[in-house]
Amino acid sequence: MGPIEFGGQGGQWLRGDGADSDIVMSCRIRLARNLRNYPFMPQIEADAAKEAADLVKSKVMGSLFNEDGQYLSVNDLDDIDRMYLIERHLISRELVNGEGERGVAFGESEITAVMINEEDHVRLQVIFSGMELDRAWGEAQRVDGILEKELNFAFSSQFGYLTACPTNVGTGMRASVMLHLPALVMTKQIEKVFQAVSKINLAVRGLYGEGTQASGDFYQISNQVTLGVSEASILDNIKRVVPRIIQYERNVREHLITENRNSLEDKVYRAYGILRNARIIDTEETMNLLSAVRLGVNSGLVEGLEVEEVNRLFVLTQPGHLQKRERRTLDPEERDIARAKFIRTRLA
Amino acid sequence: MGPIEFGGQGGQWLRGDGADSDIVMSCRIRLARNLRNYPFMPQIEADAAKEAADLVKSKVMGSLFNEDGQYLSVNDLDDIDRMYLIERHLISRELVNGEGERGVAFGESEITAVMINEEDHVRLQVIFSGMELDRAWGEAQRVDGILEKELNFAFSSQFGYLTACPTNVGTGMRASVMLHLPALVMTKQIEKVFQAVSKINLAVRGLYGEGTQASGDFYQISNQVTLGVSEASILDNIKRVVPRIIQYERNVREHLITENRNSLEDKVYRAYGILRNARIIDTEETMNLLSAVRLGVNSGLVEGLEVEEVNRLFVLTQPGHLQKRERRTLDPEERDIARAKFIRTRLA
Repeated sequence: MGPIEFGGQGGQWLRGDGADSDIVMSCRIRLARNLRNYPFMPQIEADAAKEAADLVKSKVMGSLFNEDGQYLSVNDLDDIDRMYLIERHLISRELVNGEGERGVAFGESEITAVMINEEDHVRLQVIFSGMELDRAWGEAQRVDGILEKELNFAFSSQFGYLTACPTNVGTGMRASVMLHLPALVMTKQIEKVFQAVSKINLAVRGLYGEGTQASGDFYQISNQVTLGVSEASILDNIKRVVPRIIQYERNVREHLITENRNSLEDKVYRAYGILRNARIIDTEETMNLLSAVRLGVNSGLVEGLEVEEVNRLFVLTQPGHLQKRERRTLDPEERDIARAKFIRTRLA
Repeated sequence: MGPIEFGGQGGQWLRGDGADSDIVMSCRIRLARNLRNYPFMPQIEADAAKEAADLVKSKVMGSLFNEDGQYLSVNDLDDIDRMYLIERHLISRELVNGEGERGVAFGESEITAVMINEEDHVRLQVIFSGMELDRAWGEAQRVDGILEKELNFAFSSQFGYLTACPTNVGTGMRASVMLHLPALVMTKQIEKVFQAVSKINLAVRGLYGEGTQASGDFYQISNQVTLGVSEASILDNIKRVVPRIIQYERNVREHLITENRNSLEDKVYRAYGILRNARIIDTEETMNLLSAVRLGVNSGLVEGLEVEEVNRLFVLTQPGHLQKRERRTLDPEERDIARAKFIRTRLA
């Protein structure tokens, strides 16, 4: 088992607080930055990549995090540790699949994380629980400002920040909001949301970002374009559309409770009953059942269970977390058994 | 709502005791008898049928049951009361669907019941919990002896007892054993049992007798032939085959527990969890889930729940019982909600 200490309950973004947190799980600002004096990824030579990583790491750890921060070199991590960090949204699959010296620095609350030598030299992210996009943007600006003083970022007065992939040139920003939309899924109205969102140049992704399937009825809405638009207009675009999706989901929830309370309660409590009783359960089923329970808690149908606990279970039941907890590699069947046992303990 | 008082928890046969009661729910002896001096059903005129019914009723109530017995005329009952009696195995669908004066007399324990003017003038049944065929046969003989003294039964020295349908001529006896065979169903070996049983002239039926589907993994094994065989040879035939089916089911249960304990526990506890949490549940799903829980209790996987309670729930959750309990007619959706609530209360 790798060097990471098993880290408690997951980041601040799972706390289930902040605005509209019954529907908005979290929101995230990501900024892509590159060092002016080094070749961009992946053209950079191994030695230069190591030098760039060391430079960014020393500045980040020195100026950004105090004794509560840690830096992890992906190169030192085994598969389970890597999975574990992906599940916590601290690193991306791309960082894992990359080559050469690369890693991540993050603080204890896991609100701020800096990936080094992913697609770009520097990928700064700030995640908050709830619909707190302005707060996340404020924090991202503050952190970016600190790093700007320490590092010489590649910036063009014509194009803005320069990035490895042209789609990120300009602001280098992706703003995203993770929405929990079980009622829209249940009533098969979620497709309408996708269609509306794609018309205004926003992307919809699953819980684990680009190329992942929606799971647990979580949908991540984010901007597609970074070039030729200001950060403010990206944020405005998302802040205009997200409240409408929230309202749509909320209306359908209310309708379900008014018109189909028994069916809804049945679905919610069956899910809760299975979670508290199953002896073997896979990730996919767990996510779907937790989604129903989360809806139940947020609709006042389930009492005595905090939404924070449900939020955390979405992450703590993932394969990497289960194996970190057990301190050994588990085959899929062992994982399904360990997962069921863990859930029973938590929901007892 | 009809005249029947809601009668507690169902008959002695649900007690979950007697030999091999982990697998044998109950066993039953039925004797078909007819009055020599009246035309057989259904050729009998309405007046004569009434006279015959009154005669049998008075003798049965006078000689067989004391103050703990009751006679119910099917003609006086509404649909829900009729359903209720079918669910308790006190009357048959044929009795309900018949014409003219007809009814049933039974004692408080519901071990002995006499249907009047079903297919035959007299249908005597004795049911006991567990594999207690000799006990049931002994009791049936005793009761038959009492009735023989009071009533003049049609009997031919050549053919034996005469009955309305030729298939019952001779002994007029059907001996049956209700087996709970969840492990054989789960492992898809139940077909082998059917094939073996049909080769030796035994019939396999569902929980509610002729023409009903197997439900809750219950299978009723009974003799096909009554003519030209003695009561003893009918019983011997069943007593030879049933222990082999019991052993087969038991072996598969042990194998499941040894080799697939986690899967089995998972199935059992999911069923238990759904039963304790569902808000809407139909009869079929209830039977299937109770079957898994019954297997769990009998295999020592579920503690703190008596098999008797599970047995009784199979009957108490049926539509007639639910509506008797609620004292009103319920539409199917209301029943499914009332059923779920009732089960939650019982299994809380």
